[in-house]
Amino acid sequence: MTKISLEMGSGGKLMRDFIDRSIVKTFSNPFLNKLADSALLPNKIGFTTDSYVVDPIFFPGGDIGTLSINGTVNDLIVSGVKPQFLSLSLIIEEGLELDTLNKILRSVKKAADEAGVVIATGDTKVVQQGQGDQIFINTAGVGSVMTEPDLQKIKSGDHIIATGTLGEHSLAIMLAREEFGMEAEAKSDCAPLNYLLPLWKKGVLWMRDITRGGLATVLSELSERLPFSIIIDEDHIPLSSPVQAASELLGIDPLYLACEGRALLVVPKEKTEQLLQEIKKDPKGKSAEVIGTVSDGTGKPGEVLLSTLSGGLRLLEPLTSELLPRIC
Amino acid sequence: MTKISLEMGSGGKLMRDFIDRSIVKTFSNPFLNKLADSALLPNKIGFTTDSYVVDPIFFPGGDIGTLSINGTVNDLIVSGVKPQFLSLSLIIEEGLELDTLNKILRSVKKAADEAGVVIATGDTKVVQQGQGDQIFINTAGVGSVMTEPDLQKIKSGDHIIATGTLGEHSLAIMLAREEFGMEAEAKSDCAPLNYLLPLWKKGVLWMRDITRGGLATVLSELSERLPFSIIIDEDHIPLSSPVQAASELLGIDPLYLACEGRALLVVPKEKTEQLLQEIKKDPKGKSAEVIGTVSDGTGKPGEVLLSTLSGGLRLLEPLTSELLPRIC
Repeated sequence: MTKISLEMGSGGKLMRDFIDRSIVKTFSNPFLNKLADSALLPNKIGFTTDSYVVDPIFFPGGDIGTLSINGTVNDLIVSGVKPQFLSLSLIIEEGLELDTLNKILRSVKKAADEAGVVIATGDTKVVQQGQGDQIFINTAGVGSVMTEPDLQKIKSGDHIIATGTLGEHSLAIMLAREEFGMEAEAKSDCAPLNYLLPLWKKGVLWMRDITRGGLATVLSELSERLPFSIIIDEDHIPLSSPVQAASELLGIDPLYLACEGRALLVVPKEKTEQLLQEIKKDPKGKSAEVIGTVSDGTGKPGEVLLSTLSGGLRLLEPLTSELLPRIC
Repeated sequence: MTKISLEMGSGGKLMRDFIDRSIVKTFSNPFLNKLADSALLPNKIGFTTDSYVVDPIFFPGGDIGTLSINGTVNDLIVSGVKPQFLSLSLIIEEGLELDTLNKILRSVKKAADEAGVVIATGDTKVVQQGQGDQIFINTAGVGSVMTEPDLQKIKSGDHIIATGTLGEHSLAIMLAREEFGMEAEAKSDCAPLNYLLPLWKKGVLWMRDITRGGLATVLSELSERLPFSIIIDEDHIPLSSPVQAASELLGIDPLYLACEGRALLVVPKEKTEQLLQEIKKDPKGKSAEVIGTVSDGTGKPGEVLLSTLSGGLRLLEPLTSELLPRIC
């Protein structure tokens, strides 16, 4: 009998297969079937949800509270929705220190203020010791639809931008777990992407936040839906030195590491320079880079090809199995 | 150092104090501060959320899937909101049988269809074995505001209606846990309250679904916000024989037992008979009763008084400590 495995929550291919087979098959409807980061409801309302089970609940650069706001806010923003109201639902394990909870709630408040959203409704449940893990948080978000991104507008020659260095969130979680016998100066990139919102009106064609599964998975999911291939230049992928060093040390591909404050953008070639400058104006976007191009004739439609430092072309596959469970 | 206890998730007074001190204090804003079942957002949008951690996940009359739809749908309905779209977020413990999950998903689908809502967006997380308990589900709901209930309109002489027999959900959970060495024919009353929606236009002043904390807690929370007392007639409180028998056997007051498909309504005296007939037309409302009156001069403002079978008056307090953890 098949059992649910950690891999099914990884954000990778196994998870998508499971979601396609179980969730989409059961609930099939035009809103859900798009499997976008947010659903676009009638009357220009955007709607999304995420549960956060990150372990540990505090990590360099943030905590489960920060994450539970930024993650949901970013899902709205990359869908063309201005985030406005969030719900906050807590599943607390009996025995959690009230001080710890209050610290998390203050992080939630601070992150909500920074992202300009109001916590409008909530719920609290408590489960017995050993039947949860300190705290799980769910947030759902609603906001007004500013634009409806249309994949059909993406054409050959369009550019791919990564808004910042990759993998810092995953690295921060690894370090916080102290499982890797490794020390490094790294903190999560966890942040709200509100600074990207105005770019929708300036010509951005598509956005996705780079979370579970990393850059490679986001690119694969994009290319699958395009009649083009995508070519990525390895030497333009922005990586901080701690992530580069840790990846080499542990033999991990940073293209599969998660961020919580970075996005992938598709932009029309003629607007690339202007949009890149706009992104770089914000401190969160200062390490943004043009990392690739939509089909230049190389590769088959649906493929993501990495033009490597050594001069070769490598096929990038989506994440299949979990690198790090519970990173968000 | 204070630790979170199961009682803080009970729906009773301890939980309200905790929510007032920690949650409301941190996030204070006009939407959240009302502590209503749903927030009423601009543009006539209603928004609510609940996480479901019921144990066991299958019980007579429903399962965690049924509950996760009906609970959220009912929070919207009693707030004057027509439920339209729900999010569905799963926190699954590694090792759950896929067949079990699919069975729950089918229940979700069936309940969503019955309540006329669309699952528009979702999320799946998997946690390691021993760090969750089979499955927790969060749903958030949005819908259009039909009416904005106004407590100010409640006046002395208005009637209180309970839409059906009380406590069947709690009893079903108790029986399913097999902890009480008790056998009885009981199933949860878990059901959507859509049949009550048209009553908003027919003069109902206020509704609340009777969940954690039971009838006594809902009445206390209502009376606290009124410049009147509330008098309840014990001999009009609808109880099924299994609930009555089990309550006597276990020494439990059924007024504190939870339902998942019953509501408390405040109606103008002159419309009581008409509205009661409307409710009784639906099979879910066939055991509805007028159970009390808003202030007839007896008691102090804010008090709930039970006129007992023996002829006395007993002060009804809200639930303070947990009878049954994880009933929803």
